[in-house]
Amino acid sequence: MKMNSLSSKNWTVEEYVDRIRRGDRVALGRAITLVESTRPEHRQKADSILEKCLPLTGNSFRVGITGPPGVGKSSFIEAFGTKLVREHGRRLAVLAIDPTSQVSQGSILGDKTRMEQLGAEPNAFIRPSPAGQALGGVANCTHESMLLCEAAGFDTIFIETVGVGQSETAVAGMVDFFLLLLLPGAGDELQGIKRGIVEMADLVAVNKADGERLELAKTARQDYAQALHLFPAKESGWHPKAVTCSAMNGVGLEEVWRIMIDYQELVKQSGWFESNRVMQVRQQFNLEIERQLRNQIMASKKYSSRYAELEKDLMAFKISTSQAVQRLLSLILAQN
Amino acid sequence: MKMNSLSSKNWTVEEYVDRIRRGDRVALGRAITLVESTRPEHRQKADSILEKCLPLTGNSFRVGITGPPGVGKSSFIEAFGTKLVREHGRRLAVLAIDPTSQVSQGSILGDKTRMEQLGAEPNAFIRPSPAGQALGGVANCTHESMLLCEAAGFDTIFIETVGVGQSETAVAGMVDFFLLLLLPGAGDELQGIKRGIVEMADLVAVNKADGERLELAKTARQDYAQALHLFPAKESGWHPKAVTCSAMNGVGLEEVWRIMIDYQELVKQSGWFESNRVMQVRQQFNLEIERQLRNQIMASKKYSSRYAELEKDLMAFKISTSQAVQRLLSLILAQN
Repeated sequence: MKMNSLSSKNWTVEEYVDRIRRGDRVALGRAITLVESTRPEHRQKADSILEKCLPLTGNSFRVGITGPPGVGKSSFIEAFGTKLVREHGRRLAVLAIDPTSQVSQGSILGDKTRMEQLGAEPNAFIRPSPAGQALGGVANCTHESMLLCEAAGFDTIFIETVGVGQSETAVAGMVDFFLLLLLPGAGDELQGIKRGIVEMADLVAVNKADGERLELAKTARQDYAQALHLFPAKESGWHPKAVTCSAMNGVGLEEVWRIMIDYQELVKQSGWFESNRVMQVRQQFNLEIERQLRNQIMASKKYSSRYAELEKDLMAFKISTSQAVQRLLSLILAQN
Repeated sequence: MKMNSLSSKNWTVEEYVDRIRRGDRVALGRAITLVESTRPEHRQKADSILEKCLPLTGNSFRVGITGPPGVGKSSFIEAFGTKLVREHGRRLAVLAIDPTSQVSQGSILGDKTRMEQLGAEPNAFIRPSPAGQALGGVANCTHESMLLCEAAGFDTIFIETVGVGQSETAVAGMVDFFLLLLLPGAGDELQGIKRGIVEMADLVAVNKADGERLELAKTARQDYAQALHLFPAKESGWHPKAVTCSAMNGVGLEEVWRIMIDYQELVKQSGWFESNRVMQVRQQFNLEIERQLRNQIMASKKYSSRYAELEKDLMAFKISTSQAVQRLLSLILAQN
């Protein structure tokens, strides 16, 4: 087997699959690059690799992690992830979605640097993904990257988002467990994140519960525990919890993991774990159909200019929504 | 002008519009029936009426009202609505969406009976709408019914939902203000309603704050006020509030109205009121395009059977989502 970079670019689908299933992180990384590519020949290769990897997927615990900027997501993942890998024998893949990375000043490089310890672990794989494309596209790429990681034998997947965009909803639709990191200072730091995120959380962890922030963190935890109690029950039957932790000194991380284990036991016994995954596949299928259909239709000039016209008339109270939709659809169905 | 029921069924579009703009509640009711109809000739007439009514719309305060079963939504609307009409000179239209009404045992008839006082007010109009169609359809019908009510001169619109379905999101997308009614007994009654609703609320009103429930209601209000503080700020800049009220003895209703007035002042001054309405029109347009496109496509047997096949393969890990979507879309685009 040739290992130089020139030949590696020409790996066949079979070579890719073979390397991925043996846990080759270089091949995994390259396959994810193919998944993320917008070039048709890359997409095609990615699809073939994915298809062959599919039977090897599904055997991980999928965790979404989010929180406002400054909460210390990277430090948390570094500390928590290293603990899982070293003390609990987990094989961990971290996929980070960063909507700001397009402008090159995003935190991805920073994150990567900050996760040096975890990145050096043989049983960890860290992959930042720029959110360069339309949102739905990112969701699909992340989902496929996750499947490739599972095929490569990773039994724990973290999907990290920054908590300010709309990617959280997409991520919540592809994970088993949603962790929200918050800062001590109950409420104020939430002003930076999207509404709706709190209700998605299976666990709220008040990070930076150390030094002089310890008491503040305890109060914040209590407030969140109380607030979570005021929410309707999650469909999983799980009652969201609130804890404090400190990524800096490692306190509380063991409890976070224990809660994740408790959660898995509950939802695997109840059957919700499986039924939720089935529902997620179906939902993602439908969302992707809609997204790609919309993209393909909007790519037509005739359509998009008509769309703009109708939207203008709509805003000017000249036509009703029903009429606008009707006129647009008659155009689409006549055109194809 | 002939007023017998036979001729009224044959009103021209112009007659409908003329009657509606003069506030004729019979004509308004019939026009809404046309909007709700699935018969093409009805829809066509509804569209023509709507088109002519559009310049008369937009001048109302639109309020979504929801809450778990048993919270007393109808009694609240009866008491609060009567107050607005009698003491504040408002012209109020109440549109109630009831997903259970299909089975004829729904609460619509009950509601109607319970709103006898309000229904008898000359400046009030109550219209229960069965949620017979697909959800998006209901949303569109309700939106159009609301526009007709505005054209008929109603300056306050209540859209009532039962709080257990997904219609709340759709309703939140067409109102200016979202009111969540809850029961004293902090948290427990929420178990019956959909997650996500709490975060939509601009105001949480703990109803039935009377008799021996008064103290419980006060505690619940405090808990919710605290919990709402833990949420991220709403895009409107408004900080959601929590109050107690009693529809039975009329206590707290004046405060609810004062809060709604405060809200309007805030968001009209900031410009958010208008920009939110523009955003809502755009969003509804896009949602309706997607919904109707999906409906029309799914009406094709060839497509729907292929969809079922691909979904099955997807569930069996035989193909990836990307592949399934690609295969389905090539069929749609080839077919038309």
